Amino acid sequence: MTDQSTATAFVPGHVTGFFSAHRTGNPATTGSRGGGLTLSDGVRVRVVPSETTHVALGGERVEMEPVEHVLDAFDATARVTIESELPVGSGFGVSGAAALGAAYASNTVFDGERSENDLVELAHVAEVVAGTGLGDVVAQAHGGVPIRVEPGAPGHGVLDGVPTSSRVEYVTFGELSTAEVIEGDTTRLSRAGERALGELRERPTLRHLLRLSRRFAREAGLLVPEVETAIDAVSDAGGEAAMAMLGRSVFALDTGLSDAGYDPQVCETYPSGAHLER
Amino acid sequence: MTDQSTATAFVPGHVTGFFSAHRTGNPATTGSRGGGLTLSDGVRVRVVPSETTHVALGGERVEMEPVEHVLDAFDATARVTIESELPVGSGFGVSGAAALGAAYASNTVFDGERSENDLVELAHVAEVVAGTGLGDVVAQAHGGVPIRVEPGAPGHGVLDGVPTSSRVEYVTFGELSTAEVIEGDTTRLSRAGERALGELRERPTLRHLLRLSRRFAREAGLLVPEVETAIDAVSDAGGEAAMAMLGRSVFALDTGLSDAGYDPQVCETYPSGAHLER
Repeated sequence: MTDQSTATAFVPGHVTGFFSAHRTGNPATTGSRGGGLTLSDGVRVRVVPSETTHVALGGERVEMEPVEHVLDAFDATARVTIESELPVGSGFGVSGAAALGAAYASNTVFDGERSENDLVELAHVAEVVAGTGLGDVVAQAHGGVPIRVEPGAPGHGVLDGVPTSSRVEYVTFGELSTAEVIEGDTTRLSRAGERALGELRERPTLRHLLRLSRRFAREAGLLVPEVETAIDAVSDAGGEAAMAMLGRSVFALDTGLSDAGYDPQVCETYPSGAHLER
Repeated sequence: MTDQSTATAFVPGHVTGFFSAHRTGNPATTGSRGGGLTLSDGVRVRVVPSETTHVALGGERVEMEPVEHVLDAFDATARVTIESELPVGSGFGVSGAAALGAAYASNTVFDGERSENDLVELAHVAEVVAGTGLGDVVAQAHGGVPIRVEPGAPGHGVLDGVPTSSRVEYVTFGELSTAEVIEGDTTRLSRAGERALGELRERPTLRHLLRLSRRFAREAGLLVPEVETAIDAVSDAGGEAAMAMLGRSVFALDTGLSDAGYDPQVCETYPSGAHLER
């Protein structure tokens, strides 16, 4: 509808357990393959047309390049208010969610004539160009426990999913730069990610995804000490945990982190992809 | 998880506004193109392994060929309990929902090693073989306001969506046989459906979908008198309504049917596709 003066979108969080990076000359076909979980803890993005662009996250003015790319595509300026239940820069896909939510909400307030796939492509390209992520946007548009079978935006990328639903716990120990990892040498990481993907597709269950993700983190050389300690503690307590790529964060199934003595945030897998709120 | 002795899936209802039928020699590539809405009113399917198969809908034992196809694929027998918030045989996709819900729940209790796309394909094929539908299953796996761009199961079919969220009202005046229409001559219907799809993709908004659906019902020669009267009454009251394909049912946006003096069921578009419940 073109007559709305404000719109709000909700985008689930997304933790990647393992991935491989695929770069082409075109941001729409650039992306990642891999597996992860979308989370009921997510990001709410409100867009209100305004004379100048103003982006705020948790009440503080911020620069978010992917969000600005999205507004540029609508040739528009707006007040964008982002509320995140998740920590930023810690592997939960907050930047992808901000871009995707801004795309959905902007479409409503500015012209309302793009399809969902158009909006997902727009946000994916914005995120790839900004160097803040490769696969969160398409996963967050899908929801559930997405398997990124082929990289890239709709029309190029292919998604599948693990049919499941679970309580999820998570803790975070601080930030890790996505850009630094994905813009560096990803050969070793991608080899480990491809192997995990092949095995997950053979047996697409949630526990298997967690096990493959733990192996990936070791093989890719991405484990940091606090994360390793927490994952080991969950395993010792009989649970399943893995590292959120790319962040100093750990996610676990059911009561994995609580059982290991941590005081985690609690949410669950989210059945839906990004959507507008009424 | 293979250790569960019961599992329940929720599948949203789905009304098709317009469609074209596409038959090949292969049920996985057979399907429909078109546009519709998934609904928060839906179908809950519970599967419990059992010595013999017993399928009940709303407490009454029923024969549901698509559900039996699904169990056969798992080489299993089970007690399948289907609770529907929607009327059966009235254009809300209850048979597709039963098949898809049975696939998700059976995967959990019987082996847990199929992916979401595998389960959607299984239910789609079951529905096509039974002649009960061509496009509900893929739409119900997607959620939202799905546009079926290309027909068939995942890997063949292509989906997009209208980025929107709306209150939906509906009334039903009785059953209409899906099999009779889709197994008859669909040339005229499909020509009208293809034209509507092209126009929706040019301008993918919810109001446009409703307008194209009204035109389709007339052009396809599918309107029945009670439905036509209700749609006209909603239009006269300034609202947007269309016929649910294939049923003697009308759905309207916002308060369209209430404003026209009907006493409708009230729900909303559903952001998520089919999913397991915890």
